[in-house]
Amino acid sequence: MDVDGPSSSAHHEGMTSRDYYADSYAHFGIHEEMLKDSVRTGSYRAAIMNNPHLFEGKTVLDVGCGTGILSMFAAKAGAKHVVGIDMSNIIDQAVKIIEANGFADKITLVKGKLEETELPIQQFDIIISEWMGYFLLYESMLDTVLDARDKYLKPGGLIFPDHATLYLAAIEDQDYKEEKINFWDNVYGFDYSCIKDIALREPLVDTVDLKAVVTDPCVLKHIDLTTAKKEDLTFSSPFQLKATRNDFVHAFLAWFDISFECTHKKVSFSTGPHAKYTHWKQTVFYTPSTITISDGQTITGQLTCAPNARNNRDLDIKIAYHKGDGPETSVDYKMY
Amino acid sequence: MDVDGPSSSAHHEGMTSRDYYADSYAHFGIHEEMLKDSVRTGSYRAAIMNNPHLFEGKTVLDVGCGTGILSMFAAKAGAKHVVGIDMSNIIDQAVKIIEANGFADKITLVKGKLEETELPIQQFDIIISEWMGYFLLYESMLDTVLDARDKYLKPGGLIFPDHATLYLAAIEDQDYKEEKINFWDNVYGFDYSCIKDIALREPLVDTVDLKAVVTDPCVLKHIDLTTAKKEDLTFSSPFQLKATRNDFVHAFLAWFDISFECTHKKVSFSTGPHAKYTHWKQTVFYTPSTITISDGQTITGQLTCAPNARNNRDLDIKIAYHKGDGPETSVDYKMY
Repeated sequence: MDVDGPSSSAHHEGMTSRDYYADSYAHFGIHEEMLKDSVRTGSYRAAIMNNPHLFEGKTVLDVGCGTGILSMFAAKAGAKHVVGIDMSNIIDQAVKIIEANGFADKITLVKGKLEETELPIQQFDIIISEWMGYFLLYESMLDTVLDARDKYLKPGGLIFPDHATLYLAAIEDQDYKEEKINFWDNVYGFDYSCIKDIALREPLVDTVDLKAVVTDPCVLKHIDLTTAKKEDLTFSSPFQLKATRNDFVHAFLAWFDISFECTHKKVSFSTGPHAKYTHWKQTVFYTPSTITISDGQTITGQLTCAPNARNNRDLDIKIAYHKGDGPETSVDYKMY
Repeated sequence: MDVDGPSSSAHHEGMTSRDYYADSYAHFGIHEEMLKDSVRTGSYRAAIMNNPHLFEGKTVLDVGCGTGILSMFAAKAGAKHVVGIDMSNIIDQAVKIIEANGFADKITLVKGKLEETELPIQQFDIIISEWMGYFLLYESMLDTVLDARDKYLKPGGLIFPDHATLYLAAIEDQDYKEEKINFWDNVYGFDYSCIKDIALREPLVDTVDLKAVVTDPCVLKHIDLTTAKKEDLTFSSPFQLKATRNDFVHAFLAWFDISFECTHKKVSFSTGPHAKYTHWKQTVFYTPSTITISDGQTITGQLTCAPNARNNRDLDIKIAYHKGDGPETSVDYKMY
C-alpha cells in the first residue's frame, strides 16, 4: 500500500470527497488527522505539560475538547479539575477515553454549545482551546473562545494559546493554477468556464513550497486573545508585498502563527510555507491575471475579511491590489 | 507548490476534512475529481463517442448527469435528444455549460429526483449513467438507474454501462494497519482503543499496491444491469481466496470492474490494484487479527452486503472467514 507522509497530502484537502457528514466532527477521521498533526498536538502538549507550575491545582476549561486530548494533558500537568465541552457526538468517545485513562474524577465532559450550557464550575483559572480553522478563521471557534473568556475566565486567568497572527505573501504558481483554474477552459474539448469563475473565487487549502514565495511576507492581522473582541474578527488590513526576485505572481498566500506567550519558555508554531507541515496547510487565493513583478517592486493592497451574513462560520474575503501606480484589481473570495 | 499526481492521493480520501457540504455534489470539487479521473471519463467517452452507430438519431437519458459531460458526449455521438437529470444544485452550472457549448437544443436538463419528476420524453433508446460509488455500491445511484430502466427504457434499449463485477482478495498490510488501526492503542501515551474498535469496522477507501495482494482474486458479485433487480443489491456471496505465496494477511481488499458490453469493440475498465488509478481507489477491510498463510492455502468465507436500514445509501457489510479447518471470525463493517 502506498503510504503517504503528511507532506504529500497536498491537493487532496477533502473538498472533493463523495461523502460528507451531518456532524462532521463526530467522525473519528477528522480527529485522527488533528491528533497526527504533530506540530499542532505536540505544541499544545509542550505548552501544557512543560508548564505544570501554571496548571498545578488550577481549574481548566477546554473549549471544543474533541477526543479530550488537551484535557488529559492539563490533568497530567496537575490541574485540580478540567471541564471539557464539545457539541459534537465525538464527546461520547471522549467520555470512554477519559475513563479508560483513569481521569474520570479529574475531567468532566459536557456535551452542548458553550453559549447554551450550564457548566459545573463557574470560574476557571485557565482556558485551553484548539479553535483554529483554515485561514485561521474559517469554521473557527474563536468567537466561542472569546465568549468563554468573558463568561468563565477569572481576572488574570490564562488562555492557551493567547496569540495568533495572520500573514500574507505572493507566490509563483503557474503549473498548479493551470491544473486547478485554467483546467476549466477546456474539459474534454468543452467550455466549462462558468466553473472556472467559481473555482477562482474559492481559496484553495494547500501546501506550498517556500521557493514559490516571491515577496516578503506581511502581517495582516494580529489577535491577542486576552483582549480581542468578536468585532475584531471582521477586519480590513492594508498590505505591502515587496518582491524578492524577478518573477510572475499567480496568487496570494496566507498562513498563521500561533503562540503561547504565557508559558515559561514561549511555545509557538507556524503554519507557513517555511515551517513543517500542518493539517491547516496554507491558503491560496488565485488572481484573475498574472502579475509580472521585478525584484524590489511592491504589490499594495487591502484584504477585507468578514463572516458571511448567512453562515457566520463561512468567510467573505475581498482582496484589492495594484502594482506600483497600476490599476486596481479587486476579487471577492468565499470560503464556504 | 507540491503537485501530487493522482496516484499519490492515497490515504487522503477526504473523510478527514474539516468541512462538509449539505449538498455534497453541489460543490465543483467533486466534479473536478470525477472529470479528472481519466480512466472513468475516458472510458465513458470511448464507449459513447466511438459508437455513433448506436447513438445516431436516438433518445438518451443521463441519470445523475452532474456537469453534463456524458450528455454532451452523447449529443456529439449523434443522439437526437438527450435528457439529463440530477437532484444536486450542480445542474445549475450544467445548464450554463450546455448552453456555452451550443447544446441547448439537443440536451434538456431536469433538476429533481428521477422517481418524483416528470420527464419531457417518456421512452428512451439508451440510458447512460455514472452511478458507481466506493465498493461499487456505497452511496451509489444504481437503484435509481434500475428504476429508470424499468420506467423509461424501450424494450431492447441499451444501458451504458451494462455490467459491473465486484472482486475480493486478501492483502499484506502490516505498516499501514499499524498507522491506521493500531495507532489508537497509544495516542501520546493515552489509550484510545474505543476508537480503534470503530476504525476497524470502517472500510478504508485507499490505493493498494499490486504487490500487497497475496491471494488470487475471487468474484463476489456480478451485476447485469439489463436484468438486475433492486433486491440483487442485497446479497451474500461465498468466497475462496487461495494464497499465491507465504505471507501474512491483514485485510481483505475489494474493487470492481465496469464494462460496456453493448459497444462495438467492448469498452471496460477496472478499479483494481493491477489497474491505473481511479478516484474509486480500492476498499480495505482490516481483519481483527493477522492471518498467517502459506502458498496454496485457502481462506474461505462469506461476504454479506445490505443497504443500511436507516440510510439506504449506507452499507452494512459482514465478512465471516476461516483458514482451512480453523475457527470462524466474523466482522460487521459499516460504510457510512
